[in-house]
Amino acid sequence: MIPNMHSDPDILRVGHLLADAASAAILPHFRQADLIADNKFQSGYDPVTEADRAAELAMRDILARERPNDAILGEEYGIAEGTSGLTWVLDPIDGTRGFVSGTPTWGVLIAVSNADGPFFGIIDQPYIRERFVGHSGQAEVSGPSGVHPLRTRGARALSQATVFTTFPEVGTTSEGAAFAEVARHARLARFGMDCYAYALVASGQVDLVIEAGLQPYDIQAPIALVQAAGGIVTDWDGGPAHHGGRAIAAANADIHAEALEFVRNCPI
Amino acid sequence: MIPNMHSDPDILRVGHLLADAASAAILPHFRQADLIADNKFQSGYDPVTEADRAAELAMRDILARERPNDAILGEEYGIAEGTSGLTWVLDPIDGTRGFVSGTPTWGVLIAVSNADGPFFGIIDQPYIRERFVGHSGQAEVSGPSGVHPLRTRGARALSQATVFTTFPEVGTTSEGAAFAEVARHARLARFGMDCYAYALVASGQVDLVIEAGLQPYDIQAPIALVQAAGGIVTDWDGGPAHHGGRAIAAANADIHAEALEFVRNCPI
Repeated sequence: MIPNMHSDPDILRVGHLLADAASAAILPHFRQADLIADNKFQSGYDPVTEADRAAELAMRDILARERPNDAILGEEYGIAEGTSGLTWVLDPIDGTRGFVSGTPTWGVLIAVSNADGPFFGIIDQPYIRERFVGHSGQAEVSGPSGVHPLRTRGARALSQATVFTTFPEVGTTSEGAAFAEVARHARLARFGMDCYAYALVASGQVDLVIEAGLQPYDIQAPIALVQAAGGIVTDWDGGPAHHGGRAIAAANADIHAEALEFVRNCPI
Repeated sequence: MIPNMHSDPDILRVGHLLADAASAAILPHFRQADLIADNKFQSGYDPVTEADRAAELAMRDILARERPNDAILGEEYGIAEGTSGLTWVLDPIDGTRGFVSGTPTWGVLIAVSNADGPFFGIIDQPYIRERFVGHSGQAEVSGPSGVHPLRTRGARALSQATVFTTFPEVGTTSEGAAFAEVARHARLARFGMDCYAYALVASGQVDLVIEAGLQPYDIQAPIALVQAAGGIVTDWDGGPAHHGGRAIAAANADIHAEALEFVRNCPI
């Protein structure tokens, strides 16, 4: 039986420790001329930096000490088994292309999931010193303007909505076309914000984020954060999104339903 | 005879005053639920906020007091004539679409130009509290990680370069196609950073920014900043860019020349 971790203050404490450690490991590499970016895959451009690896190792060290019974799923170093039924899901730098371009919209993603999916999430932007944390139906940001509770936007028609994605870079041709249909019906479509776009949904600034080609570690922290702030995250057919693939994050049920009609049953 | 304003410390002093005042006028409106965004034009989406207007009025008040003989060209309130031969060129919020979406990549643009074009430029990002200043062949940033001199990247082939633009949203079909050609030959193309992309050229993080449909107040501060950091900014035919229209900002002469070949003689 898994205890009710939704109210476990130790998860919050350790989450902050991880984010602090990742930030300290990454920032010395950000915007440095000697940044090493090598290609993880032969095809496509997916740089992995020294910062990425150092940050994940720093977080794993803390978890080995503070939460030895929990499992870990990390982007760089894979799976470490656990016995507690909880998994820490880590993406030390989400948005590596943005990172190597010097933009301040990449982030450190930290989630905790149980058998039902993620229930705790942090999106941290170390350069801005801005941290979005969501769990137990509560979300808040701490950053340059202080600490504020987060709440997603109220319902409005798609024709009045703002939608974000990392497209045109991500996804197949048909996935790109499905997104373009949503964008065509929306008031405003914006690109290139990486994980920061999900923080903006949680913050009540935008209505939708639609992405494809995701890994579990790309989406679990955004799911927990957005849901804690009152939003909804599913895959493009309305099912759970925490296994990766396609995701639609919405500020509320109405806009989720309206946008879902354009992406549902999208072929590969 | 215009004095050599390149070394006038009063311009630097007043430039910081303006940026401080704009920041103070804008930040109370950023990420506020009651933000008022109305359409300036019937066609297209170009929101103008209360923040935009309040910031420009605050800057104009300071200039009336501190630099009464200088002219002003501002996005919101047009031209104020002067007698000194110098013009302060103001865009209180460049990137209004990013602003109303909550992204931290809009900026306050402040330039000073003489008959030859802009020679002093500030790109300020109030939320991050990051200010990029360039003049007299020197550029620096002050921000979350302290104060650092800025220098553009050294030469590399376009195939190894990063190029930014606000496309696919900005420009005509043929202008978009010209950009796509550059992007196809580059290592990485990124979108949606507004004026922040020019700050990244000045910071040595990216190689190129290519845009079209610009107003003079959109590009004059970026020109002065990028050039002070060692870069080059021209229109798409290699001529002056400070009158607006199309611009290509490059880290160095080599990459400028290589990219220019793809956009030169682009039809409207």
